Amino acid sequence: MKHGKLFVFSGPSASGKGTICRELLKEPDTWLSVSLTTRQPREGELHGVHYYFVTREEYDKTVEEDGFLEHAEIYGNCYGTPKKYALEHMAAGEDVILEIEMQGALQIKKAYPEAVLIFVLPPSLKELRNRIRKRGTENEEQIAVRMKTTLEEIGLLEKYDYFLINDDLEEAIQTARAIMKAEHCRTAGQAKALIERFKEEE
Amino acid sequence: MKHGKLFVFSGPSASGKGTICRELLKEPDTWLSVSLTTRQPREGELHGVHYYFVTREEYDKTVEEDGFLEHAEIYGNCYGTPKKYALEHMAAGEDVILEIEMQGALQIKKAYPEAVLIFVLPPSLKELRNRIRKRGTENEEQIAVRMKTTLEEIGLLEKYDYFLINDDLEEAIQTARAIMKAEHCRTAGQAKALIERFKEEE
Repeated sequence: MKHGKLFVFSGPSASGKGTICRELLKEPDTWLSVSLTTRQPREGELHGVHYYFVTREEYDKTVEEDGFLEHAEIYGNCYGTPKKYALEHMAAGEDVILEIEMQGALQIKKAYPEAVLIFVLPPSLKELRNRIRKRGTENEEQIAVRMKTTLEEIGLLEKYDYFLINDDLEEAIQTARAIMKAEHCRTAGQAKALIERFKEEE
Repeated sequence: MKHGKLFVFSGPSASGKGTICRELLKEPDTWLSVSLTTRQPREGELHGVHYYFVTREEYDKTVEEDGFLEHAEIYGNCYGTPKKYALEHMAAGEDVILEIEMQGALQIKKAYPEAVLIFVLPPSLKELRNRIRKRGTENEEQIAVRMKTTLEEIGLLEKYDYFLINDDLEEAIQTARAIMKAEHCRTAGQAKALIERFKEEE
């Protein structure tokens, strides 16, 4: 049976990575991991859908129990990806999608080098700034910090396997699907099993 | 401007790699390299479409002039990929598709590590044997040699980047397209240019 793969999406706030990830879920055998966070819900965010909103105590307990695939503190808030469910879904043949910050993504790549890291980019910084302003959830100072962080993160782009420029959303989704499809055809990690299959036949 | 990439398709005779490559040409900005060969045309094969059918003297002259991207002798016949046109089309932003034997593909990978190698597999050896028999161009002895070579080649699958199982032709074409699309989003070789683009904006 096909083994699922781990696809990790990162990118600046308002890059559209969340929308892309939710669209990818419409594919069969695809599962989106929901992170734990200690931060407050933003308007429209639902517990169990966008995040599991937990207390600092609950978060610390999970860290102690080695229950995270990755965890990180970002802008004073804690985030973590529960380990158990992700591994179970992959073992059941499902692709697991994570939408996490760069710190967490790089932790994952270190622990699971076969994980596929995809960085979602805005077409430009100007466009990113416009999108965040339109959302109206952050003041100019916060936006300036975001721009600085984004530029720093883009500087580490090489640590990711793929980049995805979200100019046209539909095109970005198609490209994300193509990456997932292509990754299932990589010989790396699969060649030996295929060779055995053909040899047995002979 | 986008720089084209080199996609090299190999696979046993009757794996369907030729059909897949011709379908991929329907994509915009895609160019199929036509090889030179000293072998005799098979029924239906056209000069300049499937191969350039040349004499041994013409072939040797191209080798001497360093005019091949790769060249190899297979089953007593010579094959080669003209260098000039492939490089020109890539520089013009077109993806170049090569349909060549494993020997040549591995030569290319050595000279151009950024080339993407895709091995087209039949769903099974039994199915491959059936397809060749149906074609009726080879006797049982020749078919047995092909099966042996195919099994040897599959043993070297790890040297390729991707495999493509041609069970359902339409699905195999879609997957080949996905691989090509995904490869254009690899950070490897592109991250630096992207970082510069965003930095300049700031």
